Amino acid sequence: MIAKTPKPPYYAVIFSTIRTNIDDGYEDTAMRMEELAHQQDGYLGIESARNEIGITVSYWENVEAILNWKNNVEHTFAREKGKAVWYKEYQLRICKVERDYGFEKH
Amino acid sequence: MIAKTPKPPYYAVIFSTIRTNIDDGYEDTAMRMEELAHQQDGYLGIESARNEIGITVSYWENVEAILNWKNNVEHTFAREKGKAVWYKEYQLRICKVERDYGFEKH
Repeated sequence: MIAKTPKPPYYAVIFSTIRTNIDDGYEDTAMRMEELAHQQDGYLGIESARNEIGITVSYWENVEAILNWKNNVEHTFAREKGKAVWYKEYQLRICKVERDYGFEKH
Repeated sequence: MIAKTPKPPYYAVIFSTIRTNIDDGYEDTAMRMEELAHQQDGYLGIESARNEIGITVSYWENVEAILNWKNNVEHTFAREKGKAVWYKEYQLRICKVERDYGFEKH
């Protein structure tokens, strides 16, 4: 559930969203986008949670992998529908992960 | 609810967690930490969501602000209790936000 990412540096895309209350295939598309992201070169993992706000963080080897994913045709259609139908507001942030620390209980 | 951050570059700390099922003051401490973070120099905002996984992203002007927050005494106590009691697993990632894009419906 927590993404198993390699040693930094790598990239993170933080996608913070406020939904409308219109479903219209939202869950199916979200699942399809996750499946499709997995198939991209340079994809490292994804984490996602939602209550009042939704936060999805996807992890990537480099900026090129992020741009390729941005330009994926099916993803582009989903993004347009996101603006038109599913999201009231969002913010997308492209970040270079410089350091990380993990903890796991044994 | 979505943090109003300035133009990049700035910093993000992505804190991804899996909780134990022990409460023991968790909500109060989480709220107190958010309040305390607000008071730090260089704090820019916070976003948080939880279902199976929790994701809290805090935003900061620079790495120095993140380190000062890390060294805050009350925060250090809370972190120790987090490891001992509240979290099964977590990953903390320190990232430089290089680009961002927003969308808001009117």
